[in-house]
Amino acid sequence: MIDLRPVGYIIGMLTSVLGLMMLIPAAVDLGYGAGHWLVFVESAVLTMTAGALLALASRDALKRTLSIQQSFVLTTAVWITLPFFGAIPLMLGAPHLNLTDAYFEAMSGLTTTGTTAIPKLDDLPPGVNLWRGLLQWLGGLGIIIVAMIFLPVMKVGGMQFFRSEGFDTLGKILPRAMDISSALIRIYVGLTIACVLVYMALGMTGFDAVMHALTTMSTGGFSNYDASFATYKGAPEYAASIFMALAAMPFIRFVQVLRGDVVPLWRDPQVRAFIRWMGYAIAIIVIYRMVRHEADFWPTLREVTFNVVSTFTGTGYASEDITKWGHLAFTVLIISGLIGGCTSSTACSVKVFRYLILLEAIKAQIQRLYSPHRLLKVHYDGRPVEDSVVNSVMAFFTLFILSYGVLIIGLTFTGLETETAMTAAWTSIANIGPAWGPEITGNGSVADFPETAKWLMSIAMCVGRLELMSVLVLILPRFWRS
Amino acid sequence: MIDLRPVGYIIGMLTSVLGLMMLIPAAVDLGYGAGHWLVFVESAVLTMTAGALLALASRDALKRTLSIQQSFVLTTAVWITLPFFGAIPLMLGAPHLNLTDAYFEAMSGLTTTGTTAIPKLDDLPPGVNLWRGLLQWLGGLGIIIVAMIFLPVMKVGGMQFFRSEGFDTLGKILPRAMDISSALIRIYVGLTIACVLVYMALGMTGFDAVMHALTTMSTGGFSNYDASFATYKGAPEYAASIFMALAAMPFIRFVQVLRGDVVPLWRDPQVRAFIRWMGYAIAIIVIYRMVRHEADFWPTLREVTFNVVSTFTGTGYASEDITKWGHLAFTVLIISGLIGGCTSSTACSVKVFRYLILLEAIKAQIQRLYSPHRLLKVHYDGRPVEDSVVNSVMAFFTLFILSYGVLIIGLTFTGLETETAMTAAWTSIANIGPAWGPEITGNGSVADFPETAKWLMSIAMCVGRLELMSVLVLILPRFWRS
Ligand SMILES: [K+]
Ligand SMILES: [K+]
Repeated sequence: MIDLRPVGYIIGMLTSVLGLMMLIPAAVDLGYGAGHWLVFVESAVLTMTAGALLALASRDALKRTLSIQQSFVLTTAVWITLPFFGAIPLMLGAPHLNLTDAYFEAMSGLTTTGTTAIPKLDDLPPGVNLWRGLLQWLGGLGIIIVAMIFLPVMKVGGMQFFRSEGFDTLGKILPRAMDISSALIRIYVGLTIACVLVYMALGMTGFDAVMHALTTMSTGGFSNYDASFATYKGAPEYAASIFMALAAMPFIRFVQVLRGDVVPLWRDPQVRAFIRWMGYAIAIIVIYRMVRHEADFWPTLREVTFNVVSTFTGTGYASEDITKWGHLAFTVLIISGLIGGCTSSTACSVKVFRYLILLEAIKAQIQRLYSPHRLLKVHYDGRPVEDSVVNSVMAFFTLFILSYGVLIIGLTFTGLETETAMTAAWTSIANIGPAWGPEITGNGSVADFPETAKWLMSIAMCVGRLELMSVLVLILPRFWRS
Repeated sequence: MIDLRPVGYIIGMLTSVLGLMMLIPAAVDLGYGAGHWLVFVESAVLTMTAGALLALASRDALKRTLSIQQSFVLTTAVWITLPFFGAIPLMLGAPHLNLTDAYFEAMSGLTTTGTTAIPKLDDLPPGVNLWRGLLQWLGGLGIIIVAMIFLPVMKVGGMQFFRSEGFDTLGKILPRAMDISSALIRIYVGLTIACVLVYMALGMTGFDAVMHALTTMSTGGFSNYDASFATYKGAPEYAASIFMALAAMPFIRFVQVLRGDVVPLWRDPQVRAFIRWMGYAIAIIVIYRMVRHEADFWPTLREVTFNVVSTFTGTGYASEDITKWGHLAFTVLIISGLIGGCTSSTACSVKVFRYLILLEAIKAQIQRLYSPHRLLKVHYDGRPVEDSVVNSVMAFFTLFILSYGVLIIGLTFTGLETETAMTAAWTSIANIGPAWGPEITGNGSVADFPETAKWLMSIAMCVGRLELMSVLVLILPRFWRS
């Protein structure tokens, strides 16, 4: 039987931190003179108390190691539990969501998905929008830590390839986690501040700059405007493109840059492929739109760059109605979202690294057909990739596609139109943000979806964000017995 | 360098046989008093001459063995070359197609896809429709032989799992092929005749019964009516369902049944899963339609059974406008088509066998996450599956999905709407038949598609039919050097 108390302790601590964070929107609402601040204080007290009680109750069990089983339970439990607490301020005051919508919104925040269940964002108290941004920012930070420290040891979807030396035993996870995390947090905070300053320099108000920097660096995509990023067309679109792209690059490389070594970032095959593939997508759509004489070159280039980077990185801001760009552009954007950014970033979906492995694996399989006696190894970044990694990546991709199919069926079951079900499944399993179809409201929200569809999407966002396998392992009865 | 003469010899012989077959529609047109018969005689002379010349030119090179390289070249070359000759009668006389449309139609026939490029079928000379049916019937027979004899030795997409004992060396392919082929042909002809008789007993005219039996047993789906199978609603739908399902089962099992052993057919895990999954799909759609109060139970059951079996087996007959059945039904049907029938049948797509392996492989991968030191083997039919087979299946599935994505982009590039591109890509890579969208004509044909789209689909039908890898291996330069 697994000892769940260390898991309980960590979740208790994280819940308390989340409660503490609620004081930020409380202060902001107070500063703006919005009477709404009390809601956040109440929620903060409630959340901190619950977190503290949970931590205290499981305190004596904490050793400084986590078993592999405990790590699996922990990651999933964090992303199931925290949205409940994150949802509290959204229920207690404006926008007065019910549990389904509030949980959906908080899950969409903490998984950096960015789909909203709120039909009107413009009139919300500033604290509520800030809280949505904070949820994404915290979720983004959490996922980088999980991707860098937990997934490689948990060997999820080929992530064991990124296991660093002397970091194999799970006993070392926690101290090492603290060490890496502090470097990560510095970089993440630093980039966020840089993003705020750039946004302000380009004309955003202070509040809007903070809000959008929080959701840019987390590739989350929440906005405080129903019009999303269309509120700030022009230069901010280019600035956002750069910061979104940075947010989707491997943060471990930024740690190295901070130590003065730029080469690993520049030489990283997934970074190169990521930039190259985004370039292709931009080029295809720009040429396509120019041929269709839709607009002049420069605005086209800007709009396309912004929307391609936004979809490729899984941020999901909108600055244009891309469904009006013609079918080719739409298809390229949908497929971009199914690729995603780099590992150990805030980006989601299948990710560039896995496609590079998959393409190599297919090539090796085809070569094996005519020279069956040669040993053909898959290579990545100049070093051979173990078969177990290749298998893991292929199983991940297969599982991703099958889950996507099952999710489409599930969402259609709830009564959604095919287009809506397909894009809503895409947006939730790959944590992107937008969806299209007749059930989507004017501001792009899923407010009118059936309750069941919202719960299905909440589950899919969580499962997709944690790379599928690490959640699905929990439903095997044998997991709990071993 | 590969000696292409043995390949040339076999293709020459097959071309001559195809030419000989053209005398059947010639005779039928003559019998019906259609002046069109001369077109088939001309085409037959042309084709037989070309085939004989090719065979003669490469005759002295024929040994009774084929190397693995030659086998790859042969299978692809057959499905690229024969459609050119099969297209001749469609160009010389009615329906006077251009090369693109005629090649498309012949490729759609020989790959048993069943998408038509002809905008009006009802008025065609009977010989032309019979020729379309014959192309599918011959294509279906060809593919069973390829699937049973070539693919296992070529190790394409995990098919090496079905390699029978003492049948490993390629040198033995040809004599053994003759041996198995004769049993296969007897079964295929026998089932086709049974199908003709049943169709006639249920009210079809002799011609219609032959036409539809040819395209039922090949899971091809061509019809001589613009209304497709809706011409014969009622009992024939049930009869067709049974024969389509039989055509999608492993023919090797029928060989065993013929030898008096029914157990292997009944115990075959892919047969059981295939029937079970079709049952689920039928049940879901029937319940869904009953809840929506669309029609009475018995007609609903009949229509749904027919259309599910037709899509699942990749036959592609239509008896109803399934897009009117609501989104859930449509989604279930689309996904059924992405599953497909059993191996060594005329069915296409990914196939049940591969999904069974994939599901086991994912389960094993997830179990490995928490018990990394246990050796977890994937099992199929009670015996362990080699890792190389599992890898091959996963690579096949990945390649299938990626090709599907690339094809959608490609078809969108030619100007098709998203819905059309998505269903046309689905229908061609999985050799199913129908497509939906504004560019599809009233009789479901692709006549109005851009030329490029038709060529893309022709290539995709060929690549999909030959299980992707066996064609793609030919584009690697190293293949030709080794
Ligand atoms: K997002
Ligand atoms: K078909």
